[in-house]
Amino acid sequence: MPKPIILITNDDGITSNGIRKLVDLMTGLGDVVVVAPDSPQSGMGHAITVGDTLRLTPNHMFEGIEAYECSGTPADCVKLAKHQILKNRDVSLVVSGINHGSNTSISILYSGTMSAAIEAAIEGIPAVGFSLCDYSPTGDLSHVDKFVTKIAGESLEKGFPRGIALNVNIPPKQHEEIKGIKICRQANAKWEEDFDKRVDPHGREYYWMLGNFINHDKGEDNDEWAIANNYVSVVPCQFDMTGHYAISRLNDDWDI
Amino acid sequence: MPKPIILITNDDGITSNGIRKLVDLMTGLGDVVVVAPDSPQSGMGHAITVGDTLRLTPNHMFEGIEAYECSGTPADCVKLAKHQILKNRDVSLVVSGINHGSNTSISILYSGTMSAAIEAAIEGIPAVGFSLCDYSPTGDLSHVDKFVTKIAGESLEKGFPRGIALNVNIPPKQHEEIKGIKICRQANAKWEEDFDKRVDPHGREYYWMLGNFINHDKGEDNDEWAIANNYVSVVPCQFDMTGHYAISRLNDDWDI
Repeated sequence: MPKPIILITNDDGITSNGIRKLVDLMTGLGDVVVVAPDSPQSGMGHAITVGDTLRLTPNHMFEGIEAYECSGTPADCVKLAKHQILKNRDVSLVVSGINHGSNTSISILYSGTMSAAIEAAIEGIPAVGFSLCDYSPTGDLSHVDKFVTKIAGESLEKGFPRGIALNVNIPPKQHEEIKGIKICRQANAKWEEDFDKRVDPHGREYYWMLGNFINHDKGEDNDEWAIANNYVSVVPCQFDMTGHYAISRLNDDWDI
Repeated sequence: MPKPIILITNDDGITSNGIRKLVDLMTGLGDVVVVAPDSPQSGMGHAITVGDTLRLTPNHMFEGIEAYECSGTPADCVKLAKHQILKNRDVSLVVSGINHGSNTSISILYSGTMSAAIEAAIEGIPAVGFSLCDYSPTGDLSHVDKFVTKIAGESLEKGFPRGIALNVNIPPKQHEEIKGIKICRQANAKWEEDFDKRVDPHGREYYWMLGNFINHDKGEDNDEWAIANNYVSVVPCQFDMTGHYAISRLNDDWDI
C-alpha cells in the first residue's frame, strides 16, 4: 500500500524550528512534501495574493524531502501545493506549524498557521494546525513529539468530518509532564489592544501595536482552560461563519 | 440627544468610490469618522500588522468629516480607531465598504471588508460590511442608497446580538429593480483555484492566481441564492469558529 502524502506548511517560514520538527515527525507517518513561505507571515490571517505574482522555488533544506519555498501567504502555499505541485497526487493530510506562539481562542482569526489548515479544509483535505504556546522562535520543542504524532496519526487513521480543521495548541515546556489531550471549543477571550506611539527621526508619529490577552470565559471546556491546566487543546474548526442563532432574531426584529 | 458616532472603513482604500458613497449615506444617520487604509488591501483576510510600524495621517478628502488614512490593514484601522482616535468616544456602529466585488459565501474568509466588521464585533461594536457584487472599481452604485440606509438604520435602531457582524452583499445594477432584503446563511460554495504560469524576462517562472467560483449549495436560504435572485443578502456572522458538532464525534472516535 502506498504511504499517505502529507503536505507540510507553516507561517513562520521554511527556515523555522517548528517546521523542521514537523518534517522530522511526519516522515514516520507518510511521504512528506513541504510548501512553505520564504519569509515569516505571522498575523497574516487568511490573506491571499490576488494583485501580485507568486514564486515557487525548490528548496533543499530537508534531506531527501521534496520541498518548495513560496513568496506568498500560508493560504497561497496550500492553494499552489494542491493545484500545481500535487495536482496529480492525493493529499491525505495537511499539517501546518509548529507555530512559535499560541493560537488559542480568538487568535485563530489572525493566525497564518490556521489559515493554511482552514484553506485545506475548504479543499476537502483533513488538516491540523499545531502551535506551541511559547512565543520564542527558539522555544523548546523536545516535549511535543508524542502529542503531534498521536494527533496526526489519529487524523490519518480515524479522521474527522469533512470541512473541519483542527486547531491544536501545546503548552510550553515545563517541569511538569503534560496531562493529556482535550477536545475543546474556542474560548471566549480577546486581545485588548494598546498602541505605543512614538516619533520617528523625521518628527513624524508612528505606532507599534501591543496587546494583552484577556480571558472572559469561565468554562472548563475551552482551549484556554486546557492550556492553563497543562493539557494539549484540540478545537475542531469550521469555515461556516454564519451565526445561525441570529437569523431568526433578525427576521423577528427587523422591519425589512 | 447627541448623534451616534459611526466609524467608516474599507479595504479598497480611502480614495475608492465605495467609501465615498458610505460617507455620503452615513452623514444622514450620525457623526461620521473615517479611518481607512491608504492603499487597496483586497484579499488581506483578517491580517494585522504585528511586526511593523503603523502610520495614521489626517485626511481632508471628505468635506467637514474627521478622516484618517492608515498604513495598515482594515483590521488595523478598526483597532487604531477604537483605541487611539476614538478612545474617549462611544462608537455606535462600524460600517465597512462598500467593497467593489462580491463577498458572499466563503469569500468572507478572504475579505478585508468583513475582517474590519468582525474586528469591530470582537470589540463589542455592532458592525456591517457592505459589498457590491460588481468587481469594477467604477461599478454603478446609484441603486444602493435605500438598502444601505435601511440596513444601517435598523442596525442602529433595533440592533442585533453582541458579537455579530453583518455581511451584506448587493446585486449589481441591472435593468430590474432589486426585490428586497433577505436574512441568509453563508452558502456552501468555494473558489476552484487555477494558476496561470508564466516566465519572466529573466527566464524565471511565476504564477498569477485565478479562480472560478463554484456553488455547491442547492438551498434557497443562502446568500448566493439571494444574489442570484436579485435580493440584497444579509448574513449574520460570528467569530466562534468551533465546529461544535464535531466535538462529540472526536471524543467518541479518537483514542486519546
